[in-house]
Amino acid sequence: MIRKILIANRGEIAVRIARACAEMGIRSVAVYSEADRHALHVKKADEAYSLGPDPLAGYLNAHRLVDLAVATGCDALHPGYGFLSENPELAAACDRRGIRFIGPDAEVIRRMGDKTEARRSMIAAGLPVTPGSEGNLADLEDALARAGEIGYPVMLKATSGGGGRGIRRCDSEADLRRNYDRVVSEATKAFGSAEVFLEKCIVNPRHIEVQVLADTHGNAIHLFERDCSIQRRNQKLIEIAPSPQLTEAQRQEIGALAVKAAKSVGYTNAGTVEFLLDAGNQFYFMEMNTRLQVEHTISEQITGIDIVREQIRIADGQPLSYAQGDVQRRGYAIQLRVNAEDPKNDFLPSFGRITRYYAPGGPGVRTDAAIYTGYEIPPYYDSMCAKLIVWALTWDEAVNRARRSLRDIGLQGIRTTIPYYLEILKTAEFRTGTFDTSFVATHPELANYSSKRRPHDVAAALAAAIAAHAGL
Amino acid sequence: MIRKILIANRGEIAVRIARACAEMGIRSVAVYSEADRHALHVKKADEAYSLGPDPLAGYLNAHRLVDLAVATGCDALHPGYGFLSENPELAAACDRRGIRFIGPDAEVIRRMGDKTEARRSMIAAGLPVTPGSEGNLADLEDALARAGEIGYPVMLKATSGGGGRGIRRCDSEADLRRNYDRVVSEATKAFGSAEVFLEKCIVNPRHIEVQVLADTHGNAIHLFERDCSIQRRNQKLIEIAPSPQLTEAQRQEIGALAVKAAKSVGYTNAGTVEFLLDAGNQFYFMEMNTRLQVEHTISEQITGIDIVREQIRIADGQPLSYAQGDVQRRGYAIQLRVNAEDPKNDFLPSFGRITRYYAPGGPGVRTDAAIYTGYEIPPYYDSMCAKLIVWALTWDEAVNRARRSLRDIGLQGIRTTIPYYLEILKTAEFRTGTFDTSFVATHPELANYSSKRRPHDVAAALAAAIAAHAGL
Repeated sequence: MIRKILIANRGEIAVRIARACAEMGIRSVAVYSEADRHALHVKKADEAYSLGPDPLAGYLNAHRLVDLAVATGCDALHPGYGFLSENPELAAACDRRGIRFIGPDAEVIRRMGDKTEARRSMIAAGLPVTPGSEGNLADLEDALARAGEIGYPVMLKATSGGGGRGIRRCDSEADLRRNYDRVVSEATKAFGSAEVFLEKCIVNPRHIEVQVLADTHGNAIHLFERDCSIQRRNQKLIEIAPSPQLTEAQRQEIGALAVKAAKSVGYTNAGTVEFLLDAGNQFYFMEMNTRLQVEHTISEQITGIDIVREQIRIADGQPLSYAQGDVQRRGYAIQLRVNAEDPKNDFLPSFGRITRYYAPGGPGVRTDAAIYTGYEIPPYYDSMCAKLIVWALTWDEAVNRARRSLRDIGLQGIRTTIPYYLEILKTAEFRTGTFDTSFVATHPELANYSSKRRPHDVAAALAAAIAAHAGL
Repeated sequence: MIRKILIANRGEIAVRIARACAEMGIRSVAVYSEADRHALHVKKADEAYSLGPDPLAGYLNAHRLVDLAVATGCDALHPGYGFLSENPELAAACDRRGIRFIGPDAEVIRRMGDKTEARRSMIAAGLPVTPGSEGNLADLEDALARAGEIGYPVMLKATSGGGGRGIRRCDSEADLRRNYDRVVSEATKAFGSAEVFLEKCIVNPRHIEVQVLADTHGNAIHLFERDCSIQRRNQKLIEIAPSPQLTEAQRQEIGALAVKAAKSVGYTNAGTVEFLLDAGNQFYFMEMNTRLQVEHTISEQITGIDIVREQIRIADGQPLSYAQGDVQRRGYAIQLRVNAEDPKNDFLPSFGRITRYYAPGGPGVRTDAAIYTGYEIPPYYDSMCAKLIVWALTWDEAVNRARRSLRDIGLQGIRTTIPYYLEILKTAEFRTGTFDTSFVATHPELANYSSKRRPHDVAAALAAAIAAHAGL
C-alpha cells in the first residue's frame, strides 16, 4: 500500500493532493522553489523540501524530483497538472526507481502527447476525428497542399502541444503562410519539438470533455462530461458539469466514446478525452489529456467521487471503487477560475500581496485555493490563484449560487477575474446555458464593468505584511 | 413574491439566511446590537440597523423587530434559531403587521412549545411517546406520586423548555425531592413559566431527529434523519446524517412518523421531530422544534436541498419544490460545532480576538461561520462561532474528511473544541458509528489531549488588531 507521496507540483493542485493524502492516512511531501517558500502547499504537506533558488528549474527537473522521492522514503509521486505531468520521462524515471507514478504509463503519455499519433489511435478505435493532415507536415508547401484538400479554415497545431498553446487558426492561404513559421517556432520553444500538423477548423465549437478513470485490472468508467466552452484565447475560464447543452442521448454517447478511447490505448488512472461539438451537434475527438485536470473538481461535485483518491488507489494497484452503474450524477457544478489578472487591462497579470482573503461559505460552495491573507503571489507562475466551485440541484440555482459566492469572496490587494465573471453570469447566454468557444471573444463589452475598488488601504496592507512576516 | 427579508438574528445563522436571500434575489436586512457592530452578518446583509447598546434586549424585542421590518419595507421576517424563533408572539406580531413570518403559524408554535400539549397531540396522532405525567405537575407531592407510577429513573422537565435546558434526571425519590424546586425555578427564569412535567427516563438513548418541510397546500415531506447523540449536557456537539445506527427499515419508519406528526398538527415550513431511540430499538417522540435548526446543514448535504430557500418559498405561499419521491439521499454528512470554549478547562468560554482564521477547503467541505481574521467574539452570546460540515460518499471517508478538515482549519487567538473533536473522531465508537447520548460523559479522558498551542504571537495579534481597526 502507498504510504508516502511526493507531490511534484505547487499551488492549489499541490494543496488538493496533500488533502487527499491526509484523508487517506498517507504522508505527503511538498517541494518548493525559494519563491514558493511561503506557499500554502508547503504548509499543508507533512514535509517540504526546497528545490533551490530558480523559480522553475526544480519543478521541471524530473530526475531531481525522483531522486528526492527516493531520498525521502516516498513510494509514489503525483505530478499534478502542468509542469512535468504529461512528460513521459517523469513517468519512466519513476518506474526505473521503483516509485509509483500516479498517472498512466510513460508509453501511453507519449502516444497521447503526440497529437498526430493520438489522432491515428483514435481513428483506429473508431472515434470521430476532424479531417486533417494525417501525420506531421514536411514544410510550408506541404501545409498549403494539405490545407487545400481539407478546406479553410484550418487549425495549425504543434504536434506536442496542449493546454491551448501552439495553436493558430488560418482562414486563408495567406494566413497559413503568415503563421507557419510562427507556430513552428512556438512549438520548438514551448514543447521542444518543431513538428506541426493541420486539422479542419470547427468554427465556434463547444468544448466538451469527458472525465475517465481506468484501473490496472481492465476496468474503465466515465464520470460524465464537462462543458469548457467559456475560454479566452484557448484558456478555460469557467467550466460546467454536466453540460447544459447536451441531450441525455448525447451524454450517453460521448461518455461511451471516451471509455472506448481509454480502453483502446490501454489507459490507466485519471484522464480526460476532449471533444469539439459543432453547430450540427457532431462530436469530434480533439485530444486526450493524460493527467488530472484543473476542472476535475466539478466532476467530483456532481458524482461525489474523489478523483484524486481514486488516482492514488489505481496507482496502488487497487480496482476502481465504482462500476459505471454506481456513478450517479446529481445537479450542476460550475467552476470559476479566479485569476490574478486585470480584465479591464487586457487580463494583464496582477501579482502582489493579498491583504485580505475571506473564503466564501454556506451551502454548495467549495474553494480550492492557494492563497491566504498576507500571501504574496510570486510573479513566476500561472495567474490562477483560486478555484471557486459551486453546486446546486438545478442549473438556475447553480448560476445564482455562483453569483452569490463571487460576491461573498473577500480578496484584496490584487485585481482578479471575479468582477468579470459577475458580468458573464449576467448574460442571457450563460443563464440559458447556450454558448460556444466564441463567447468571450464576441463579448468584449463584459470587461467594461465599473471598478468600485476601495482605495488602497494602508492599514490593510500593513496588517497583511505583519501577518506574513509572522509566518501565519 | 417576497422581496425583502428582515433577519431577526445574529451570528452564523444570520449569515446563512443572508446568503439564501442573495441567491434568490431577495434583499436582506440585518439587525445588530452595538456589541455586534463588526459581526459578519452585518457585512453580509444588504442593509443593517442597530438595535441599540444592550447586547440582548434588541434581539428579544418582538415588537421592535416587527416595527423595524415594517419601517424598512420588508415583507417577511426570518427568526433563525434561538432568541424569539419559537416565541409565538413574534409570529403573531408579524401576522398582525402584514409581515410574513418564515416559520409555522403562531398557534402551532405555541402548541408544540408546550411540551405537555405536544405530547398529547402526538399521542392523538398515534406516535409512540414515553410514559409520563399526562399534564403538568401540581406540586412536589403530585410529582412523587406520578414518578412512583412511572418508575424511576424519570426526567423532570420544564413544560416550556427546549434546547436541553430545564431538564433534570431523577434516579430516586430523594433525587426528585432535591431537584423539584430547582427545575421549577430554572423554568421560571429561562422560559417564564413555572410549569413542569415528568417523563420516563430512557437510559442512554440515541438522539435521532427528522427534518420535515411542509407547505401551505397540504404537502409534507421529510429529508431523512440526523443522529445527534454526541452531546454534552444536552447540548449537541457533533451531528450526523443519516444516522449510521439505523437500518433502512427504521429510516423509513421514522421518516413516515415525522411526516405524520407534522401533518397531524397542520404544520407548515421547516421543522424537526426529535425522537429517542432506546437500547431495544424502540423510538419515542421527544419534542418538535418549530424552527430551522443549527444542524439543518447536514440534511442539505445529503439531499442537495437548500432548506432556507424552501422555507422562504413556503412562507411565500409556493408549493414544495420536491415530492417525497424526489428526495434522494447520497453519502454521509457530519457537522462539527466549533465552539469558543476550552475543553481542557471544563469547556469554559474562550472569547476574544481571532488573530487568524483560515477556512478549510477542498472536496466535501462546507463552512458556515460567523468569524473572520481580526473579529473579536463578544462575550454575550452562544459560544458556537463556526460550523464545519463535511460530506463523503461513505461513512469511512466522511470520518477521514472530518479529521482532515479539522486540521485544515486555521483558527488562532481563542481556544476551541477542535482538538477535542479530533480525539472523539479517533475513538472506535465514532469510527464504527455506535454511540449513544452517554458518549461524552463516559469519555472524560478525551479532553486530556496535549495542548501544543503556539505561544501567543504578538505580531499575529497586532496584525489582527490593525485589520479589525481597518474594518476589514
